[in-house]
Amino acid sequence: MSVARIDLNADLGEGFGPWRMGDDAALLDIVTSANVACGFHAGDPDIMVETVIAAKARGVAIGAHPGFHDLRGFGRNRIQESPARIERDIAYQIGALQACAALAGARVTHVKAHGALANLSNEDAAIAEALARAVAGVDPDLALVVMPGLPAERAGERIGLRLVREIYADRAYAEDGTLAPRASPGAVIHDASEAAARVARMVGEGAVFTLGGRRVPVAIDTVCVHGDNPEALAMARAVRAELERAGFSLRPFAEPSATS
Amino acid sequence: MSVARIDLNADLGEGFGPWRMGDDAALLDIVTSANVACGFHAGDPDIMVETVIAAKARGVAIGAHPGFHDLRGFGRNRIQESPARIERDIAYQIGALQACAALAGARVTHVKAHGALANLSNEDAAIAEALARAVAGVDPDLALVVMPGLPAERAGERIGLRLVREIYADRAYAEDGTLAPRASPGAVIHDASEAAARVARMVGEGAVFTLGGRRVPVAIDTVCVHGDNPEALAMARAVRAELERAGFSLRPFAEPSATS
Amino acid sequence: MSVARIDLNADLGEGFGPWRMGDDAALLDIVTSANVACGFHAGDPDIMVETVIAAKARGVAIGAHPGFHDLRGFGRNRIQESPARIERDIAYQIGALQACAALAGARVTHVKAHGALANLSNEDAAIAEALARAVAGVDPDLALVVMPGLPAERAGERIGLRLVREIYADRAYAEDGTLAPRASPGAVIHDASEAAARVARMVGEGAVFTLGGRRVPVAIDTVCVHGDNPEALAMARAVRAELERAGFSLRPFAEPSATS
Amino acid sequence: MSVARIDLNADLGEGFGPWRMGDDAALLDIVTSANVACGFHAGDPDIMVETVIAAKARGVAIGAHPGFHDLRGFGRNRIQESPARIERDIAYQIGALQACAALAGARVTHVKAHGALANLSNEDAAIAEALARAVAGVDPDLALVVMPGLPAERAGERIGLRLVREIYADRAYAEDGTLAPRASPGAVIHDASEAAARVARMVGEGAVFTLGGRRVPVAIDTVCVHGDNPEALAMARAVRAELERAGFSLRPFAEPSATS
Repeated sequence: MSVARIDLNADLGEGFGPWRMGDDAALLDIVTSANVACGFHAGDPDIMVETVIAAKARGVAIGAHPGFHDLRGFGRNRIQESPARIERDIAYQIGALQACAALAGARVTHVKAHGALANLSNEDAAIAEALARAVAGVDPDLALVVMPGLPAERAGERIGLRLVREIYADRAYAEDGTLAPRASPGAVIHDASEAAARVARMVGEGAVFTLGGRRVPVAIDTVCVHGDNPEALAMARAVRAELERAGFSLRPFAEPSATS
Repeated sequence: MSVARIDLNADLGEGFGPWRMGDDAALLDIVTSANVACGFHAGDPDIMVETVIAAKARGVAIGAHPGFHDLRGFGRNRIQESPARIERDIAYQIGALQACAALAGARVTHVKAHGALANLSNEDAAIAEALARAVAGVDPDLALVVMPGLPAERAGERIGLRLVREIYADRAYAEDGTLAPRASPGAVIHDASEAAARVARMVGEGAVFTLGGRRVPVAIDTVCVHGDNPEALAMARAVRAELERAGFSLRPFAEPSATS
Repeated sequence: MSVARIDLNADLGEGFGPWRMGDDAALLDIVTSANVACGFHAGDPDIMVETVIAAKARGVAIGAHPGFHDLRGFGRNRIQESPARIERDIAYQIGALQACAALAGARVTHVKAHGALANLSNEDAAIAEALARAVAGVDPDLALVVMPGLPAERAGERIGLRLVREIYADRAYAEDGTLAPRASPGAVIHDASEAAARVARMVGEGAVFTLGGRRVPVAIDTVCVHGDNPEALAMARAVRAELERAGFSLRPFAEPSATS
Repeated sequence: MSVARIDLNADLGEGFGPWRMGDDAALLDIVTSANVACGFHAGDPDIMVETVIAAKARGVAIGAHPGFHDLRGFGRNRIQESPARIERDIAYQIGALQACAALAGARVTHVKAHGALANLSNEDAAIAEALARAVAGVDPDLALVVMPGLPAERAGERIGLRLVREIYADRAYAEDGTLAPRASPGAVIHDASEAAARVARMVGEGAVFTLGGRRVPVAIDTVCVHGDNPEALAMARAVRAELERAGFSLRPFAEPSATS
């Protein structure tokens, strides 16, 4: 009987030029998959290569984390662009990271959209299609990280991408199984041990639990954690520890492998 | 007996956002290889994909044309960056174009550096090495366009890249076989038919002719033409016509091929 | 009895780095006020200074033309930013142009928002307030160009700015006196002499004429013309000629004056 | 008899978008003049306005800190631009900060060049002239911060600017009275109390002390301190404490004043 496995993913390499964000080194000791900023909302070629090297050294899988071309807004502003432009911008970013990874003898295994681009791909079918087409167009072997039940998942299914369904460690779910809006009471979980216990239960049961107490079965391949501040890091560590205690094998959903 | 072949290359896709430069459509009917700007000195993902589509439709080979990250200066300003940063920036740009090409079902076959980056790679061995390492690191099958006798050629040879030696249609050569400085009398050729005749003779004899009248044998795989203005386009057409008249087969040095 | 006067305004200096847009020199011989891009959607310090020098030499008034920080989208994409950020971005751009004007011994007399920023300021009261506050905050003597009947006009009135009401030479008006949407039949006027005749009548009567044939009285201080292509330039010339024929004195709404 | 006065200056507002650099709040409690980044090497309109507000609240004088347009390189890369372009870029940045200051009811009193631009203005007379012309062109009442004995000082004198001569708290001097190169043994002072004692002695005697032990009399109006890390902050505090202990009055070289 095989041991159940789960992946932990986080966004990394979100500095730019002289600036850094979060404690990537600490986070790389916790997660099994890294979503690396590609230069549009954060990241530059130096940071990208350094992040790839650090991830590869720890056996952490490397994913592209494309966003809107908006450094100052950190990709959090919604920009009304056409799906065609968004598709091309995402492809550009994935390719840029693939090349940075190749320099370091590593390989990109997945894609996860960032910020306002991710939000739009979870709301707007045309943006979701643009995301899926970009991934498939660049490399159909890339996995796409999606939230269960939303347009990006459906677009990825339609186009035949390998999908990786994720849940959030620090967020509660609405009655339909999607994330409860941040403004709802109880929507954001601040306590590390509470988050860890919830995650272990959700992963163990293959379901998310809503604010109203319902249990909504979903496929869960990965858990998203954060590392922007010491509290987030502590929560990420607690989540990992709890999952290990519960007997899960923490492994990248996509096995990283060298290019040669 | 096989027909001698030669390639004509030009820089394309050098607009940005709402702005365009030169007449790419006209140039694509003349050249056999296109060097496509990759977003740093010019170009954006929309323009890159559109340029790739147009090149592919005409059987024109697609190359990456990386430059310094300096839109305003169009990559013409020398920026004192470390070779490591330059290597990463070049890799990033190549990968970005590869992905844009993949979206369009096309493939990048070569790399040619732009502007101040090209000049530096022809003067500074460390920059030349950075260029060659970036190309080989991203994809060792990519060809590198170089000027004979300069550091980039030597770096490419050392690293084992396929090299494509180019001559310029509108420039005269110094006594050592390198380009005569633009400021020298006679260094820039303005007359289209003079340029065409010179090129046909250089390609036919496998040699460049210096301002002083010497003949310096060099390998010649491609001829660089320009399309920024009507005069440049007329010269490019004259060069092509003269090469055809002389019996050369105009073909990409690297045969373009679809990804699938 | 004084001669009735009117101003003609157009956007200028909308190139960037090596790229240019429209024929600024031709346009400067037609208009009396220039709205100069300030580096966010177009323009850079070189182009700004050059445009100021050319405008000053022809007695054309110099205005700031701030937009969203989005070169690639030319300020046409709507970006969801807070009014506070928009106020600061507008102030930054005005100040930058004031300094470029000062280098050339000239003075900025007015402000006109660009593209998506202008559209938002005509729809959203909070953005309109941000625009008016930015102008007043930087220099309460600056005039603000507005469309009659829309939020930016009301915000400018509330804050006590000098307002300059404009009509468009090439656009028809809806029944409420605002611009008819571009998609409506007849909304965009393509014929130069038709546009010129309409403008002269509107300016003469102090009213706009709607698609449905109604006459809506409005204050008219300036007429907006374009110069992006030869047809637009021809229309701008026709408008000017017709206004002169009708006896109007073409003068900047704000008299340009040297800084010293 | 008046109390001798001295100014302490530091660079502030050197974040961008979501990123911050150094502890500006702590530094503002130590210094009397702040050099505020203007958006080219760091800084954006939000950060600029916030920094101005914080400086004004503590009575700290506000200066523009223009640099090369190179966020990723933080203005540390030398870029070969023409003096004319540099003059315009500096003017643009000063004006942008003046407008941000005006929004906050404050006024810019001085200019200090950043990074590679500062270095070039201390080596190259043409760049020094460009800096001085930009300052005088935008507002001849602005003071220019210079290092004694170098081209920027001479250019400022020639053009009639008010000059503010600075020494560095953490740097030793070469035999000609200029900064000893960082690579020289002893060129960088790491000990806070040593730096503080040196500064108090230099300010008290109106002279710098060279690595070789010589005393070179210079005018000293301000002392440059840093705040990028806790050690730098500790040194800045020690310098201030030592100057106060020595009886100096710590005051901005240029008295800040509200715009109204």
